Amino acid sequence: MEDKKLTTREENFSDWYNQLVQRAELADYGPVRGTMVVRPYGWALWENIQKALDQRFKATGHVNAAFPMLIPESFMKKEKEHVEGFSPELAVVTIGGGEVLEEPLILRPTSETIIGTMYAKWIQSYRDLPVLINQWANVVRWEMRTKLFLRTLEFYWQEGHTAHATEQEAIEETERMLGVYADFAINEAAVPVIPGRKSDKEKFAGAKATYAIEAVMQDGKALQSGTSHFLGQNFAKAFDIKFLDENNQLQYCWTTSWGVSTRFIGAIIMTHGDDQGLVLPPNLAPIQVVIVPIYRKEEEKSAVMEAVDRVVAGLGDLRVHVDKRDGLTPGFKFNDWELKGVPLRIEIGPKDVQNGTLALSRRDKPGREGKSFIPMAGFEAAVRDELKSIQQALLEKATQRRDAHIFDVSDYETFKEVVENKGWAKVWWSDDTENELKIKEETKATLRCFVSNVEGEGTCFYSGRKTNQQVYFARSY
Amino acid sequence: MEDKKLTTREENFSDWYNQLVQRAELADYGPVRGTMVVRPYGWALWENIQKALDQRFKATGHVNAAFPMLIPESFMKKEKEHVEGFSPELAVVTIGGGEVLEEPLILRPTSETIIGTMYAKWIQSYRDLPVLINQWANVVRWEMRTKLFLRTLEFYWQEGHTAHATEQEAIEETERMLGVYADFAINEAAVPVIPGRKSDKEKFAGAKATYAIEAVMQDGKALQSGTSHFLGQNFAKAFDIKFLDENNQLQYCWTTSWGVSTRFIGAIIMTHGDDQGLVLPPNLAPIQVVIVPIYRKEEEKSAVMEAVDRVVAGLGDLRVHVDKRDGLTPGFKFNDWELKGVPLRIEIGPKDVQNGTLALSRRDKPGREGKSFIPMAGFEAAVRDELKSIQQALLEKATQRRDAHIFDVSDYETFKEVVENKGWAKVWWSDDTENELKIKEETKATLRCFVSNVEGEGTCFYSGRKTNQQVYFARSY
Repeated sequence: MEDKKLTTREENFSDWYNQLVQRAELADYGPVRGTMVVRPYGWALWENIQKALDQRFKATGHVNAAFPMLIPESFMKKEKEHVEGFSPELAVVTIGGGEVLEEPLILRPTSETIIGTMYAKWIQSYRDLPVLINQWANVVRWEMRTKLFLRTLEFYWQEGHTAHATEQEAIEETERMLGVYADFAINEAAVPVIPGRKSDKEKFAGAKATYAIEAVMQDGKALQSGTSHFLGQNFAKAFDIKFLDENNQLQYCWTTSWGVSTRFIGAIIMTHGDDQGLVLPPNLAPIQVVIVPIYRKEEEKSAVMEAVDRVVAGLGDLRVHVDKRDGLTPGFKFNDWELKGVPLRIEIGPKDVQNGTLALSRRDKPGREGKSFIPMAGFEAAVRDELKSIQQALLEKATQRRDAHIFDVSDYETFKEVVENKGWAKVWWSDDTENELKIKEETKATLRCFVSNVEGEGTCFYSGRKTNQQVYFARSY
Repeated sequence: MEDKKLTTREENFSDWYNQLVQRAELADYGPVRGTMVVRPYGWALWENIQKALDQRFKATGHVNAAFPMLIPESFMKKEKEHVEGFSPELAVVTIGGGEVLEEPLILRPTSETIIGTMYAKWIQSYRDLPVLINQWANVVRWEMRTKLFLRTLEFYWQEGHTAHATEQEAIEETERMLGVYADFAINEAAVPVIPGRKSDKEKFAGAKATYAIEAVMQDGKALQSGTSHFLGQNFAKAFDIKFLDENNQLQYCWTTSWGVSTRFIGAIIMTHGDDQGLVLPPNLAPIQVVIVPIYRKEEEKSAVMEAVDRVVAGLGDLRVHVDKRDGLTPGFKFNDWELKGVPLRIEIGPKDVQNGTLALSRRDKPGREGKSFIPMAGFEAAVRDELKSIQQALLEKATQRRDAHIFDVSDYETFKEVVENKGWAKVWWSDDTENELKIKEETKATLRCFVSNVEGEGTCFYSGRKTNQQVYFARSY
């Protein structure tokens, strides 16, 4: 907590973000350049994200495991595109137990290579398939420009790795997990992501196809918030993942991988936050309801605290925090919990006790609009309803903002203006990696993803060719 | 699963352990020497351990966070004993993003140094204290002799790190967490650990005092299964963790740290396992009840599966698995689930359906003794009771085994025989590091911990001096 006001989003969106992450005590920089400490409040948010995702993984038949973080350097070189994509970002262990290692070891930037090696050992027959494993892990990528949650040297994620007997099954898995991610983002985080396939230029190093959920931030930039890769037989061939099929023929497996990381916390901050601070969706907020007891004289205290205890007991399984700190004014406390984005605040003072009411303040609607008084009788259901209403309102507001940032564009001049000042450009696109590179160079905008279920045909805004594909372009984090 | 029989504990306890860990699919070796893959069945067990511990941590006021794994080499050198203890075991990153680093980075072997650095930044005043943070993390120690779960290059653990305003509070925290560990071990894992203080020679590098929970394995060896350290002001001084007290005086904090790791899975295996395989305590078992449907003809199937569904529904929140695999005999399945240590098996065949009964088999009591038939009516409570009874029986059996392995010893000849062939020696001990070293050299036994609440006096079995302290010596993992 600091007294100085946050820089506003309007003044400088990037400064607003950086200040907010640290002041709300979500995260801090570690002593090594570009590393991140996720502080208790930020980690509690991540734990709620983990729970929401893990439930969905288990409901779709996946199990968790843990693979080593140390990967022999030679493994990285077995899949040609993979090594090209990742080699500039590797951290290398060269000394262990005081001795120079014969073979240097890589800190995993992602685990296709080491997990593939184990799958080759474990999978013998079609009866062993599918293998549907996820791990929650830390990974290391030597990034040059870092920003808390969005891009740090070490970050936290889950990575699913699956192996299948047929191409069709692997494609279905890739799509299923993209759907799981979109469902999580929309219904738990209230982040109205757009799911779609990435271009060849933007796909994962070593994948046949990459799908992503893309989110629109309040400044109009895109944030890739989760990816699901169809790896074909690329890694199966590089790591010799084979099985005997029902006809006793040796076949290569078809594999997938998919991941969501602590970067998603950045998506939540930049989707919902305002100039007072964080605005967290009730489904994921570490604290869903904060209760601020208010009394001036000691003789008022016991009646107020009795009401507080009754409310806490009545809210049972919700995540409730009572701010009992001494020596701080209610106003200071209100600002503090607004900074921290707690969805709902309940104030309880002597008058409320007398009147048999509770004063509610919604974080998503500042000032009078978000304030209401409810009777103590039946408050349990009313508070729960209010949280549901906040969750829904956040999604609606974010969806409106998203749509207001997306522009149908048909010429390059408008395109440049849109991606520089306004947000996303939705365009007809005749797929062409060379043109994509030129556009990036000229406008800093990248192809975010293909539009799903396009109907009809149009003219590519850049090449003028006829096409039946549409895509989104935007600058991105 | 393999057809070959497990080596028995009697034949070779170490081979029994190594085979069991791999055949039960708890873990496997990774490609880098001494690294471990924790497979889904093993990780599910670890997740249950995590839940049981995490609940206890949160109930005692702790919160989770995540600190970077990369530590500047210079940090390790700030606390003299700490660097001496850990420097032989370090893994060192010397290259990042293709360039040789100015300062090499250590992969955390433990996090006192980096967490201390952050605490120095976050803690200003007595109002910020206590800080009670835990993290679930991977750590790396370059071990020469490795064994799955017990000692691997990388392992998984939780490490609590707390900072306090007074010595007394820090000592209380150290003792509280030792109590939490003992409670978890005894009441969740049915591992009857002995809590106690370690000797100066055996304490954590940099601690003022280390307390441990020590477990007796079936071969009589000791396994240190969790530790809680009182760090005094050693790390506070090395990392400048200071606060302004209520009189506006600058003071050093008093800190603690405490950890339990995946090593605890080794304790569970070697406490309860038998020659048929794992025996898992119901409170932690990934699968508490396995149901094996039995039918020969297709027309029997629907009645059997209907009963199976009814039982699954009735067991609600229990962790239940139905073995629907085709083409395997019931006998094969029974052996498989015995190998995997599932506490309770329910067989359901056409006769059971006809008689309205269920056939239960307890994993902890092989053969007829552990077999019973219960009526379908009211099976829900009967199955729950049976699991409770198994949990209790495991603790009782393990406690008897533990006590049968501990011998009161008063002379060195008997001591040598006990620690070589029988188990633990409980002795009067006049504390003396030099003698402790000699004993280790001569017998390979180490001082496991001081006996708590000793009454009276006795004669040190080694020095002949009068003393009021007793200790346990044993060979250990």
